Amino acid sequence: MLARFLTGDRRGDGWRMKTSRIKQAIEWRLLIETLLNPNKYADLVLKGGYVINVITREIYEADVAILGERILMVGDASKLIGPQTKVENVQGKFVSPGFIDSHMHFESAMLTVTEFSKLSIPTGTTTLVADPHEIGNVLGVVGMKAMIEEAKQLPNNVLFTVPCLTPDAPGLETAGYDVTSKDMEELLNDPYVQGIGEIQGFANVRPVFAHASHVLDDQLASVAYAKSIGKTVEGNCPGLFGEELAAHIISGGTHISCHETTTKEEMIEKLRYGVSVFMREGSSQRNMAECIRAITEEGLDSRRAILVSDDMVPEDLMKYGHMNDIVRRTIAQGVDPVEAIQMVTINPATHFGFQDVGVLAPGKRADIAVIGDLEQMRVDQVYLAGKKVAENGELIIDIPSYTYPDYVKQSIKRKPVKVEELHIQADGYRVKVRAIEVIPDQNLTGALEFDMTVSQGVIQPDVGRDVLPLLVVERHGRSGKIGKTFVHGIRLKYGAIAESVAHDTHNIIVTGTSYEDMALAVNRVIAMGGGIAMIKNGKVVGDLPLRVGGLITDEMTGKEVSERIAQLHRLAEEELGCTLHVPFMHLSFLSLITSPKWKITDMGLIEVDRFEVIPTVIQGGI
Amino acid sequence: MLARFLTGDRRGDGWRMKTSRIKQAIEWRLLIETLLNPNKYADLVLKGGYVINVITREIYEADVAILGERILMVGDASKLIGPQTKVENVQGKFVSPGFIDSHMHFESAMLTVTEFSKLSIPTGTTTLVADPHEIGNVLGVVGMKAMIEEAKQLPNNVLFTVPCLTPDAPGLETAGYDVTSKDMEELLNDPYVQGIGEIQGFANVRPVFAHASHVLDDQLASVAYAKSIGKTVEGNCPGLFGEELAAHIISGGTHISCHETTTKEEMIEKLRYGVSVFMREGSSQRNMAECIRAITEEGLDSRRAILVSDDMVPEDLMKYGHMNDIVRRTIAQGVDPVEAIQMVTINPATHFGFQDVGVLAPGKRADIAVIGDLEQMRVDQVYLAGKKVAENGELIIDIPSYTYPDYVKQSIKRKPVKVEELHIQADGYRVKVRAIEVIPDQNLTGALEFDMTVSQGVIQPDVGRDVLPLLVVERHGRSGKIGKTFVHGIRLKYGAIAESVAHDTHNIIVTGTSYEDMALAVNRVIAMGGGIAMIKNGKVVGDLPLRVGGLITDEMTGKEVSERIAQLHRLAEEELGCTLHVPFMHLSFLSLITSPKWKITDMGLIEVDRFEVIPTVIQGGI
Repeated sequence: MLARFLTGDRRGDGWRMKTSRIKQAIEWRLLIETLLNPNKYADLVLKGGYVINVITREIYEADVAILGERILMVGDASKLIGPQTKVENVQGKFVSPGFIDSHMHFESAMLTVTEFSKLSIPTGTTTLVADPHEIGNVLGVVGMKAMIEEAKQLPNNVLFTVPCLTPDAPGLETAGYDVTSKDMEELLNDPYVQGIGEIQGFANVRPVFAHASHVLDDQLASVAYAKSIGKTVEGNCPGLFGEELAAHIISGGTHISCHETTTKEEMIEKLRYGVSVFMREGSSQRNMAECIRAITEEGLDSRRAILVSDDMVPEDLMKYGHMNDIVRRTIAQGVDPVEAIQMVTINPATHFGFQDVGVLAPGKRADIAVIGDLEQMRVDQVYLAGKKVAENGELIIDIPSYTYPDYVKQSIKRKPVKVEELHIQADGYRVKVRAIEVIPDQNLTGALEFDMTVSQGVIQPDVGRDVLPLLVVERHGRSGKIGKTFVHGIRLKYGAIAESVAHDTHNIIVTGTSYEDMALAVNRVIAMGGGIAMIKNGKVVGDLPLRVGGLITDEMTGKEVSERIAQLHRLAEEELGCTLHVPFMHLSFLSLITSPKWKITDMGLIEVDRFEVIPTVIQGGI
Repeated sequence: MLARFLTGDRRGDGWRMKTSRIKQAIEWRLLIETLLNPNKYADLVLKGGYVINVITREIYEADVAILGERILMVGDASKLIGPQTKVENVQGKFVSPGFIDSHMHFESAMLTVTEFSKLSIPTGTTTLVADPHEIGNVLGVVGMKAMIEEAKQLPNNVLFTVPCLTPDAPGLETAGYDVTSKDMEELLNDPYVQGIGEIQGFANVRPVFAHASHVLDDQLASVAYAKSIGKTVEGNCPGLFGEELAAHIISGGTHISCHETTTKEEMIEKLRYGVSVFMREGSSQRNMAECIRAITEEGLDSRRAILVSDDMVPEDLMKYGHMNDIVRRTIAQGVDPVEAIQMVTINPATHFGFQDVGVLAPGKRADIAVIGDLEQMRVDQVYLAGKKVAENGELIIDIPSYTYPDYVKQSIKRKPVKVEELHIQADGYRVKVRAIEVIPDQNLTGALEFDMTVSQGVIQPDVGRDVLPLLVVERHGRSGKIGKTFVHGIRLKYGAIAESVAHDTHNIIVTGTSYEDMALAVNRVIAMGGGIAMIKNGKVVGDLPLRVGGLITDEMTGKEVSERIAQLHRLAEEELGCTLHVPFMHLSFLSLITSPKWKITDMGLIEVDRFEVIPTVIQGGI
C-alpha cells in the first residue's frame, strides 16, 4: 500500500522525453556493436595498468577500452584493438575512476568555476558538487544561475546543490536576496542542479525549532519538492546527537550528509543514523584524521564515508593537489588505498545517485585518473569523457577563461560612506562595551567586555588593548543599515581592512585603528565593485578586486589570485602590523551567525544561541 | 558539459506535485515535533534489543522508537516513552530491517500476491520485487496490471519489474500478447512498477545480435525510456564474460542485475563489471553456496551481492521460510550474519534506489524483523509500517483473500481438441524422429533420435523406451497451432499430463502414453480455464485448476495449493507410474526456449542455439 514512498520520488505525470536520452540509446547501440562485431574496435585502450576496482575493492591488471566518451569494457581488451585504436601504455600505473569532490565552494577560492577547474582537473578531480550559497546570498537565483551557466561550458562534471534558505537567519541579517521555498521550482529543475545544499538553518536545531519554526516549515516544503523530482538534500549537523540528530535528518527528507563532523564519536553516531559523513579536509578545517578512527579503530562499514574539500584556497590546490591529496592523507591514516579511493568515487556516486561516474564499468563515462604512485597519489594522466585532458600535473587542453555578465558584477548597491556614519557613539567619557573575541583558526568566537574612552561623542579605537571597531555595512541596497560593535584579537596596529567577503550574507565588513581609514577602506571596496582593501593613513596599501558578486574574480587565474593574496598577507603584516594568521579569513567569518557565540551583522551584535540582537554599549557615558 | 547524464534521468518538464509528497512533509513535521518537544512521545518503542545496523555492519544494544508508520530514532529512546507509549521488550533479541526479496515470481508459487504475502510476511520479508513476466506472456499489460492492482491492497511493499519483451523469442513461439517498447509508457508510469524486469532476450547475446537485432533495438528504446523516468532495469546474463557481458550490461542501460550467476568465476567477473549479482536460492535453483566464495574466499566487497528467491513453492515457504532461510544458509557458508543481512536489506535498497526501506534510521518506514535466534534466523515478530503484523511465525492481522476479475480468468482461448489434431503423422511403418531429452533438475535439455513405429499414418508412443509424444497446443486464440515432437525422460507408464503452465508463453503442454488420454488432458485444462490435469484410461485422476491466467489460483491458500501439489505428485507416481521427480515442473520447462538445446513451442521443435524450427520427423516412412 505504501510503495508510493519507494518510487514516488522518481517523476511526476506529464513527463516529456528528452533528446539526451535518445542520444544515449544510440550511443549504447554503437558500444554494443563495437563489442560484438569482430570488425569494430575501440578508439582508445589504456593498456596493462593496475585497475582500481572500487566496486569489489580490488586492484588487478586489466585494460580499459574506450569508445567515444564511454568505457566499452575493463578486462582483456586485446580483441578490441584495431588498426586505428590509440593504445596508451599504462603498465605499472594505477587506473582509477576520476575523483568526486562532493561538497565545495568556488567562492572560498575566489575563483571562477573555470579557473578552479583548471587547477583541479590535473589532480584527477573530474566531478565537482558545488554549493553556491555565497553567491546565492548576494544575488539569489540570478547569481547562482550565472554560475551554473559557466559550469555548463566546462569539460568536467560540475553540479550544484543550492540553498533553500538565504539568509541563514532571516530577521537577524540582510542578504541580497531571500531564497525560500518559492525559488525551488526555478532552481531545482535545472539539470545541473543536483539538489538542495547544506541545510544550515536547522543545524542549530533546538533554537530554530523554538524561535523560528516557520523556517523549518519552509525548509520542509523545499525538501519535499526536491525529493518529489528526484533531487537530493544535503545536511549540516555539527555536534548533533540522538533526538536532535534524528530531527535534523528527517528535516532533510531522511537521507542527508554532514560535512562538519569533527569527532570519532560524532562520526560513529552519524554513520549509525544513516548520514553520509562528508569528512572535511580543506585548506583550513581538517576533520578526517579524527573521523576516520570510526573506520580504522572500530571497523565500521565505510560505504557512507566520503571525503570533501569544502573550502580550498588556490595556493593549496597548486602546491598539494585536491582530492588526490586528501586521499593521500587518508591512506596515511592507515586506510587501505582502494577503500580511501572508494570515498571519492563509488561512495559519493551512490550517495548522490550518479548513474554515470564513480566506477570504471561498461557504458560509464570515461572519466579516469591514472595514478603513478598510489601512496603519494601522484596523478600522471587525467581523462574526461574519453579524452586525455591532463598529463604530469599540467592541463593539455585549452579551457578559455570565462567572463561573467555585468549584472553579477554590480552587486555593491551602496553609495560611499561618510566617516560619521561609521562612528560608534556614546555620551560621556567612558563606556563599557561588548567585544567579539577572535579565536584563531576557528569560526567560533568568544564574548568580552571592555571599558572604552569616548571622545566628542565617539567611542575611540583602543589599539594598545587591541579593541577595535567592527562594523558591517549593508551593501545590497536593502536595509541600508550599519551594524556596529567591537572586536578583540584582530591584532591590527595601523590602518583598516574592509572586504565584501563576509559570511554568509556578504555585506561589507570592516575593522581598523581609525574611523577615517575604515571609511576609506569601505569606499575602496565599493569603488572596486567588491573585494578586499587595506588602507593606512588615508592611502590604499593593498587590494584585491572581486567583482563577481563581490566574492570572485573573473580577471585572474588561480596562480594570480594566489600570489595576490600572499602579497596582501605580507602587506597586512608589514604595513598594518597585523600578527594574526590569515586576517581576511578571520574577519570574513565574524559575521557568520550559524556558529556561536557573538557575531556581527548589519543588524548589530548578535547573540547566536539566543537568536537576538544585543546592544554593544552596555553602560552609557560616565 | 555532460552533467545531463548524471541527473537527466530524474524527471522531465511538466512535472506535477503529488499529494503523497505533501502528506510526507506533514508526517516529517510531526516526527520532528515529537523528537524535540519534551511533551510529545513515541507510539511504540522496541526496547533493549540488539539492533542490526546494516549501514555500519554492527550489532549493538539500542531501542527503536516509532511514531505512526515511521521510525523516530534508533538509540536510547527513554525520553520518548510517555504514558501512552506502547513498550515492547525485545531484550536478547535482534532487531533488523525487514527483508527484501529482489527477484521473485508469484506464478512460481501458483499463488496470488495475497496468499504469497501471507506466507512470506511472518518470515520477516517486508518488501517483494516481483517479475510478472509469466502472466505478462499470457495476458500482457492487462494481466500485469491486474496483479499490480492486487498488490496495492496489501500491507507489505510489493513492487514490480515488468518485461519489455514477450514472448522471449518473437517468431518462434506465440504468447497471448506481444509486449514491446510500445507498452512501456503505460506500464512503467505506475508507481508500483519499479522498472524493467530481467531482460531475457539479450542474455543469449551473440545469437540475438546476429539474428534478431531488431529485438535489441526495441529493448534499447524501452531501457532508455525507463531510465529517463528514473526507473531501473534488471538483467539476466548466465555464463556471459568479457565483451558479451559488457554488451549485455550496456543493453540494460549500464546498471543491471543478474539472477542466474552460478559459478565463483562468474560472480567475480560480474561484480567487477558492476553487476548487482542476485544470488538465487529458490526452491529448485540454488547458486549462493558457489557464488558466495567470491566473498568468503576472495574477500571482495559485498555491497553489490544480493540474495533472491526467484522461484519458491508454497511448501518450502511454510516449512523453511523465505529470505530468513536464505540468510540462514548464507551464514552457514561462513558469512558474517550482519553482512548476510545486508544482502537482503541495504544492498538491494541501494540497487533499486529505495529511499524508505532497507535500513533502520530516522524517518524510514518501520518495517522490522525481530529475530530470536540469529544463526537460525528465527523471526519472532514482524512489523510493517510500525504495526506488529506477525508473531512467532503466525500472521496476527487479517488479510482478506483476493478474487481476480473475470477477464484474467478467461485466458484459455481454445475450443476442445479432437484426438486427430494431436496425432503426429507419418507415412509407412517406421520413421526416425527427434526427441527432446529431459535432464533431471535442469532447464537444459539433450537432443536424441529414435526409430519409431507408425500405425495407420500415426507415430505411436513407445512407453517401453520412454519416447512419448510432446505437444504444445496454442491457447491464446492467436496462431491456433499445435507444435509436435517427442520426449524422452518423462518416465510415464500410463495416461497423460497436460498443463497451462509452460514457460514462458504458457500454451498448453501435454505428453502421454496415448493420444486419447492426451486429448482428454488438454480438454480438462481447457474446461478448468487453466491448470494441471492427469488422465488415465479416459478418466481424470487428478487436477489443479489455475484460473488466473492459467497460472495461479485465487481459490486456494498456500497450504491448500501445497497439499494439492503433493497429492498430484503422489498420484503421478501411483496412478501414472511416473518416477521422475516433480514431473509438472520438468514438463513446464520443456517449452522454455531461452535455454538450450531443443525445446518445443506451438511452432514446433526449436533448436535454441540456431534460433530456428527443425522438423521432428527426420526420415519419412520406410
